[in-house]
Amino acid sequence: MKNKIFLSSDLKILEKSFRTNLINCLSGFQSANLIGTKNKLGQTNLAIFNSVMHIGADPALMGFIARPSAELHTFNNILDTNEFTINAVPIEFFKESHQTSARFDKGVSEFEACGLTPEYSENCSAPYVKECKIKIGLKLAENYTIKSNGCHLVIGEIMEISIQEDLLLRDGYIDHNNANGLAVLGLDGYHTTQFLERLEYAKVIEK
Amino acid sequence: MKNKIFLSSDLKILEKSFRTNLINCLSGFQSANLIGTKNKLGQTNLAIFNSVMHIGADPALMGFIARPSAELHTFNNILDTNEFTINAVPIEFFKESHQTSARFDKGVSEFEACGLTPEYSENCSAPYVKECKIKIGLKLAENYTIKSNGCHLVIGEIMEISIQEDLLLRDGYIDHNNANGLAVLGLDGYHTTQFLERLEYAKVIEK
Repeated sequence: MKNKIFLSSDLKILEKSFRTNLINCLSGFQSANLIGTKNKLGQTNLAIFNSVMHIGADPALMGFIARPSAELHTFNNILDTNEFTINAVPIEFFKESHQTSARFDKGVSEFEACGLTPEYSENCSAPYVKECKIKIGLKLAENYTIKSNGCHLVIGEIMEISIQEDLLLRDGYIDHNNANGLAVLGLDGYHTTQFLERLEYAKVIEK
Repeated sequence: MKNKIFLSSDLKILEKSFRTNLINCLSGFQSANLIGTKNKLGQTNLAIFNSVMHIGADPALMGFIARPSAELHTFNNILDTNEFTINAVPIEFFKESHQTSARFDKGVSEFEACGLTPEYSENCSAPYVKECKIKIGLKLAENYTIKSNGCHLVIGEIMEISIQEDLLLRDGYIDHNNANGLAVLGLDGYHTTQFLERLEYAKVIEK
């Protein structure tokens, strides 16, 4: 099978939506998470992100990339209130979750507009998503602006984790597969998953 | 179904491997990619990463998180030579790819030790992985050290993309699902994927 090659000079002259799809797909499967915030006036905001990442286990840190255009509400709310929630999108609500990426008018909460339910804990001021089985409350720890394109790497320290009990295995592993979790490709390609294998910690094999 | 709650004070006193699994799983499914580099002397290095991310489409940028302990060879090689490759792990080679995370002695190339084949292009000095169907050559663009834990966010600009022709759809979308791509949960949980749906660009629905 032949390979299609793109050099950096080719990328610059590609049609815009083709390039957006191509480059967004290159990294492979990503997670689907809803980020919940409030603004200074207490109005809730909810947005889907495919860029939520593990940063470190001790201290317990997670991060995500906020783009300068679309995702400014989430980013500004976090700067203003210091707190946010990350909620794993289950397959039963992937269409409602995707719909949070529409550009709603100021004053409209994506919770109400998309049919998802805000839920609160005494340990976090930002709204969780009731429909999700894996929910994390975080406080802003660090924030880096990427010079090349103005995106922000937002890093939060975990204040609270809430996991549906049957999804947490004895060794701390969370069974997202059993939670009907999703893997996303590019901006719009939703996939279910099937468990293959957990591999042992890799060790050098002496020959 | 009840939920299990962990507060930040609980996380600090968890058994270490339990905490590592728990926090690594929180973000949900991630990609499986092999990063290929060379050191100053030309010796090749290959390591599996679940943190490869999209940074931007124009300019075309990708990033990954390098931990201060395990992944210093990859990071130092990139600082020394400025170039690296990202190669999507196909299911046929997921065990060989996982094995690259073992702590091999200096002077051992993971390519040879794990049974993967280095491949070169005139457009990138770093080694590609011949067995992979989606390969990207990058040059170092930016590098941020995360203060909280010393991890590095490494960002590269794409110099070359090589994709098996049948995996590239007309609109630029790359069919990782058809490429037998993998979704990884935590440090060791490998999953296959099944295509569900591509959703349209979300628009506000007037009521």
